[in-house]
Amino acid sequence: MGQIPTINADRLLQRHAAMAVFGDTGRGGVMRPALGPEETEARQTLLDWARARNFTCSIDSIGNIFIRREGADPTLQPLRTGSHLDSQMPGGNFDGVYGVLASFEVLETLDDHDIATSRPVEVVVWTNEEGARFAPTTMGSAVHAGALALETAFASQDHDGCSVGESLFATLKQLGPLHAASLGSPAHAYVEVHIEQGPILEQSGFRIGLVTGIQGIAQFVVTVSGEEAHAGTTPRSRRKDAFMSALDLIAALRPMLEDAEDQVRFTIGSLQVRPGATNTVPSEVSFTIDLRHPDAEVLDGRCRTIADLCGAAALPCPIALRQTLNSPPVAFDTGVMATISSNADRLAIPHLALPSGATHDAKFMAGLCPTGMIFIPCRDGISHNEKEWAEPAHMIAGANLLLGVVMDLAGSA
Amino acid sequence: MGQIPTINADRLLQRHAAMAVFGDTGRGGVMRPALGPEETEARQTLLDWARARNFTCSIDSIGNIFIRREGADPTLQPLRTGSHLDSQMPGGNFDGVYGVLASFEVLETLDDHDIATSRPVEVVVWTNEEGARFAPTTMGSAVHAGALALETAFASQDHDGCSVGESLFATLKQLGPLHAASLGSPAHAYVEVHIEQGPILEQSGFRIGLVTGIQGIAQFVVTVSGEEAHAGTTPRSRRKDAFMSALDLIAALRPMLEDAEDQVRFTIGSLQVRPGATNTVPSEVSFTIDLRHPDAEVLDGRCRTIADLCGAAALPCPIALRQTLNSPPVAFDTGVMATISSNADRLAIPHLALPSGATHDAKFMAGLCPTGMIFIPCRDGISHNEKEWAEPAHMIAGANLLLGVVMDLAGSA
Repeated sequence: MGQIPTINADRLLQRHAAMAVFGDTGRGGVMRPALGPEETEARQTLLDWARARNFTCSIDSIGNIFIRREGADPTLQPLRTGSHLDSQMPGGNFDGVYGVLASFEVLETLDDHDIATSRPVEVVVWTNEEGARFAPTTMGSAVHAGALALETAFASQDHDGCSVGESLFATLKQLGPLHAASLGSPAHAYVEVHIEQGPILEQSGFRIGLVTGIQGIAQFVVTVSGEEAHAGTTPRSRRKDAFMSALDLIAALRPMLEDAEDQVRFTIGSLQVRPGATNTVPSEVSFTIDLRHPDAEVLDGRCRTIADLCGAAALPCPIALRQTLNSPPVAFDTGVMATISSNADRLAIPHLALPSGATHDAKFMAGLCPTGMIFIPCRDGISHNEKEWAEPAHMIAGANLLLGVVMDLAGSA
Repeated sequence: MGQIPTINADRLLQRHAAMAVFGDTGRGGVMRPALGPEETEARQTLLDWARARNFTCSIDSIGNIFIRREGADPTLQPLRTGSHLDSQMPGGNFDGVYGVLASFEVLETLDDHDIATSRPVEVVVWTNEEGARFAPTTMGSAVHAGALALETAFASQDHDGCSVGESLFATLKQLGPLHAASLGSPAHAYVEVHIEQGPILEQSGFRIGLVTGIQGIAQFVVTVSGEEAHAGTTPRSRRKDAFMSALDLIAALRPMLEDAEDQVRFTIGSLQVRPGATNTVPSEVSFTIDLRHPDAEVLDGRCRTIADLCGAAALPCPIALRQTLNSPPVAFDTGVMATISSNADRLAIPHLALPSGATHDAKFMAGLCPTGMIFIPCRDGISHNEKEWAEPAHMIAGANLLLGVVMDLAGSA
């Protein structure tokens, strides 16, 4: 392959600003829940840009979008690159959308320079990566890779009882006609560029992260069942207070889950108290546990601790434990990692090998084809927050690196 | 006054069954939020019964309804008796509605027997006693007694952002024309009959409780402010986790608030985690505290403890404490208590003097006129629960006792 051009930095930043309008909260972030009207408008805008280039746009049964620039040999398996357009509720302006736009910028740059790749290159927009509106996270790639049944995904409901199936139907109506793509269609390789969502690159001064893999995640829902009672008349000794029992359980869990090295990630992000009246002793409390570690053995040990403590707790209220996600650590492809590393060297960008603390759609793609990821730094390591921020210079460097990687992996015609 | 008749027990139980239809959950309880369509239907039905008797029906600015049977001397201040028709969400079939129906049965019995009282007798239906949909509790009597400003009450919103003002407007439209009653109109005395909502009468074998007063209540909202962050990437040492900080605060509060005698009532009935996503470190937690004790000094001391601990907590997250209710203990009128006691003796019903663990509209009426309350037992002391249950024999006994008390206090013509 000959000369490698540079991406159009102004266009990338303009497209980024244009996308930030959809679900703009007015406080620096966005509220773009998966399959909601705002995310669908963002998808529509990207499709408009793609059609203006005569790229082929298709969609699979779970709503993942594929924007294809044809290769010299259309029978070769495509190289795929992409991320997601949905956000946390609310979330920032970089998580996901940056990876989609950097990938699309690569496609446009190839087009601007009339560069023919041997393989087709496809930008993927994954459905419901965040899992903020519908559980589980990385739904679109999980269904695409066959790790989650389509009907299970369709039945998942948001807090208002609206299902993925219903919302996807509304999204498809809004988007209009698209080609149909198959679930699990073969790919030559998959590369995703993303903000780090953690503080390591910024603190260590590296501008690019060469991601070695994704730490394992286990998620649980714990339900504590008590008995509704009047707050003014029921003595403590006669209460079956679901909330106080939940607190006792969490107090027992915390020291067992937190480690001195501060590598275990233990989060209770959601807790519901029912019926939730000031003057009523709670009858039911349910809360989530999100637990992560790069080492499968450590993670499994902590999961057993959760099960043991929930099983053995001597509380007035029975406890039900349900594991909702069990995702072992994933290692990325060494070949893809070498391609990323050599391109970073060529561009003279200092880079650091590190595991991903967050999960990504690349995790499920790693089961389908050789997969890798590129991180750029984000300010103060803050993500899942309206204050999320990445420097334009880092966004541009990440997209230029992705361009070289895509050209290498897609091959010259 | 001559012979005292007995109430029509069949009619009381039939009216009770008829009311249970409005908001029936199908699980033995009702969902009849204050000023919602179901509670308004219950009010409408009661008004239909009242109009069939030619009783005068009026309503004050906060929606409290007064059903008046005229006295021999209409210029005398009325004797009032009543309770409320709204429920917890969901709640039982006895809390409130029993007191309204027992009062109305007394009016019908007087009418059936052509008994003329000197004073008018009025059945009151208080607006939003429960406080389950709109804060605070006992809103209607608080506004009526001048303890809460009408505009403050009107501005209170439910979880969906619907205000008391809007909901009352809809209720008035549904009810149709009624006479206007004044806030704070003078009354000769007020008597309320209610289920105990606690276990004491049932355990001690007494069929009637002679209520000595209402314990004091303090309610607070505590808000803990943290920083939203990604659950997978943010080390514990860098988190400002609002939920874990809230747990630390509650763990410090519990031993200071709970007493060995089990007389302090300490309840956290509601807790919200924001943004509430499984994979996001919480940015804000707010929870309620409901604290009660019959002794003003003990209650005040515990309130100071809450303020001290919230002020002094060495947590990564700032804490804001707001007191939403400060209601000192109230003692009922000894004259009204003596009338209740002598009528119970006359009917040979064993009765026990006890304070009320729950608050009631009678608390605010005690500031306006001589006030008393009668309790009947409820099964297992369970209330604010669909399993709430009172024996028909106890309901009938309570209504017969109320009849005698009303006749004594309203005087013979």
